Amino acid sequence: MKVELINTGTELMLGRILNTHQQWLCRQLADRGYVVTRQVAIADTALDIEQAVREALTRADLVIATGGLGPTSDDLTRDLVARLLGRELREDAAILDHIRQFFDRRGRAMPERTRVQAQVPAGAIVLPNPNGTAPGLALEVRPNPFRPDPLPSWLVMLPGPPRELRPMFTDTVVPLVQRVFPQDAPFVCRTFRTTGIPESAVEDTIDDPLRGMVAAGLELGYCARPGQVDVRLAAHGVDAPARVREASRIVTDRLHPWIYGHDEEDLETALIRELTARRLTLALAESCTGGCLAHRLTNVPGASAVLLAGLVTYSNEAKQTFLGVRAETLAAHGAVSEPVAREMAEGARTRSGADFALSVTGIAGPSGGSAEKPVGTVFIGLATPSSTVVSRQLNPYDRETFKQVTAQQALDLLRRALP
Amino acid sequence: MKVELINTGTELMLGRILNTHQQWLCRQLADRGYVVTRQVAIADTALDIEQAVREALTRADLVIATGGLGPTSDDLTRDLVARLLGRELREDAAILDHIRQFFDRRGRAMPERTRVQAQVPAGAIVLPNPNGTAPGLALEVRPNPFRPDPLPSWLVMLPGPPRELRPMFTDTVVPLVQRVFPQDAPFVCRTFRTTGIPESAVEDTIDDPLRGMVAAGLELGYCARPGQVDVRLAAHGVDAPARVREASRIVTDRLHPWIYGHDEEDLETALIRELTARRLTLALAESCTGGCLAHRLTNVPGASAVLLAGLVTYSNEAKQTFLGVRAETLAAHGAVSEPVAREMAEGARTRSGADFALSVTGIAGPSGGSAEKPVGTVFIGLATPSSTVVSRQLNPYDRETFKQVTAQQALDLLRRALP
Repeated sequence: MKVELINTGTELMLGRILNTHQQWLCRQLADRGYVVTRQVAIADTALDIEQAVREALTRADLVIATGGLGPTSDDLTRDLVARLLGRELREDAAILDHIRQFFDRRGRAMPERTRVQAQVPAGAIVLPNPNGTAPGLALEVRPNPFRPDPLPSWLVMLPGPPRELRPMFTDTVVPLVQRVFPQDAPFVCRTFRTTGIPESAVEDTIDDPLRGMVAAGLELGYCARPGQVDVRLAAHGVDAPARVREASRIVTDRLHPWIYGHDEEDLETALIRELTARRLTLALAESCTGGCLAHRLTNVPGASAVLLAGLVTYSNEAKQTFLGVRAETLAAHGAVSEPVAREMAEGARTRSGADFALSVTGIAGPSGGSAEKPVGTVFIGLATPSSTVVSRQLNPYDRETFKQVTAQQALDLLRRALP
Repeated sequence: MKVELINTGTELMLGRILNTHQQWLCRQLADRGYVVTRQVAIADTALDIEQAVREALTRADLVIATGGLGPTSDDLTRDLVARLLGRELREDAAILDHIRQFFDRRGRAMPERTRVQAQVPAGAIVLPNPNGTAPGLALEVRPNPFRPDPLPSWLVMLPGPPRELRPMFTDTVVPLVQRVFPQDAPFVCRTFRTTGIPESAVEDTIDDPLRGMVAAGLELGYCARPGQVDVRLAAHGVDAPARVREASRIVTDRLHPWIYGHDEEDLETALIRELTARRLTLALAESCTGGCLAHRLTNVPGASAVLLAGLVTYSNEAKQTFLGVRAETLAAHGAVSEPVAREMAEGARTRSGADFALSVTGIAGPSGGSAEKPVGTVFIGLATPSSTVVSRQLNPYDRETFKQVTAQQALDLLRRALP
């Protein structure tokens, strides 16, 4: 089955915005057994949109187009598709009513130009939009004049704003796709998320024991980013659940010290979950990560029950004032040192009353390195009710990668120490 | 001129990674007057890559392909392109030498499979890679057998890792493109970055005064994200500098209270620049933004000279311990209140010794709202040497957007207060 994705938007082509739809939609589909075979981005011009839709319809069983359904003069997709497929547009009373109510609830008059969003091509299925005014549209192109086969294709059009597109996709497009394109056989997919081990070591550990299963059709994929390697297992067929279960057992067995979670769960979410379950609290003392640890942890709903305080102490004075690091320790060892990391963690723990505290002090760069402590040197401290440990790492990356990788190592240090 | 971008990677199609190349390359090209007309992403399979390259060569004057130049079995682009264009591959001694040295400097033996990266199609220009082993390749397809015109096309192949691709693009591809495809006339582009004003108000303010210039060929574009609206002006032609200068004068005149910077500068960078120039220091007291403010500011090199301390105080106890917020204030008004925001800012300023302090306390949600203070309510405090102000905002967004928008408002409150 061929699935193609078309993202429209002049701002995409000018590099003004990041195409987050591509990753999100590809992942949603892949995890349900539908792999996008081609993604295209084009500007909001009639010629480009018509050409891209026409081309996709020559090849794909399912075409998903995003954007171009709004009320402005840039929003051409609905009209162009109706014309391309020779479908008449009619105003849908229920949509018009929804649009009116949308503005009523906000105490605003309905702008006349938003009325165009109630236009529906003949035969299209309307996908309701509880978070906006433009509904999505799905239509079967049968017969499909563009395809040499000539098999029918489905064309789904979704609104551009992510907070409208995402729930619409999950709630209405996924069930539609699963109904129209049922998987011939079960599809099972599982992702293991690891940290603290490089990609080559992950491959060396599990490639061999999984070789036979891969030869027999198991899909095995790796995705590495700084501080993070994912292992993805997938299988199609009646025995897919058993095969993924068996492969998962092997992966877990070989990689369990490094696996912190599954599927879409990130390390901070896993950690907040574990700490909440154990009713444990945390404090942070950050120097070179500059609040990255606190920011990541507080992105997780429920973090407030766990994170009592985070201290970002760049200056020596702040380390002394807020964490009680001693002037002598700073003078004797420097701010980037094992003893300072230790005192930062212990100070944060004692002063906040938390069960655990993490500390980070290092040299993010680009300047500030020395022969003994090059740029990228970092000390990560963990104070627990029973002891304090400090881990030394070298993360010679650009500033933002340094912060993310160091934060990942700190979170992992705590994860491994949990009782 | 038609420019097409091809991003290869199975992980892209499975939604495992975000395609940041697309935005970055599109922006780099657009800001120099070259607009990407189509971007395609496909998996790392021979059939997909060959089809995508062949199709792009039927249309485009310049084709840029990313990925597929590494040493593994997934890296097919170099071979496929050589075969498609009938160019012989030869080992380049200088590249081989570079690869050897790359491993030597790291004290590692050169893996034999990395040798393939020294293969160069006949006639290709080698683009050196100081940050990795795989060089980029550029070649002129002349005659171009795929184009109906039949004009020649250029094909540029770049390595996938961003820290290799980006400097290579800036240092070698941009000069090459500017030499091969000189702009017929000057191209000038300027972006104004605003915050604190909605997109519709920006448009209402400048659309009318710029209407005549737009009719005469000035490009005017808007890009809105939460807490941020960019205005982009561009012009081609001999009088482009004068036209963009005149339009810039109008935009600055009408929007100056909201403009914080230009082109790629973000608000935190502008603020660190302004504070550094004035030798002023800053402290932060964050509750609901949870370190987002500190994280954003410390992404800016040089932030350590400005940011003395950041306190992330989620709990009431932490607000009292680290900031000196009074128990009576918390009891009388609640943690999300004007008086608490005031005491947080003043406490952070006094205790850190900074010139300014920003505080944030609010309800990020999804839970915790009330009729009087719904989810999204936030109080932002600013303590200065002479006074303290508190601004109340309502940011009813998802958790991460809430944090970003609130941080943006806090940074802007400080920006506007600078002497």
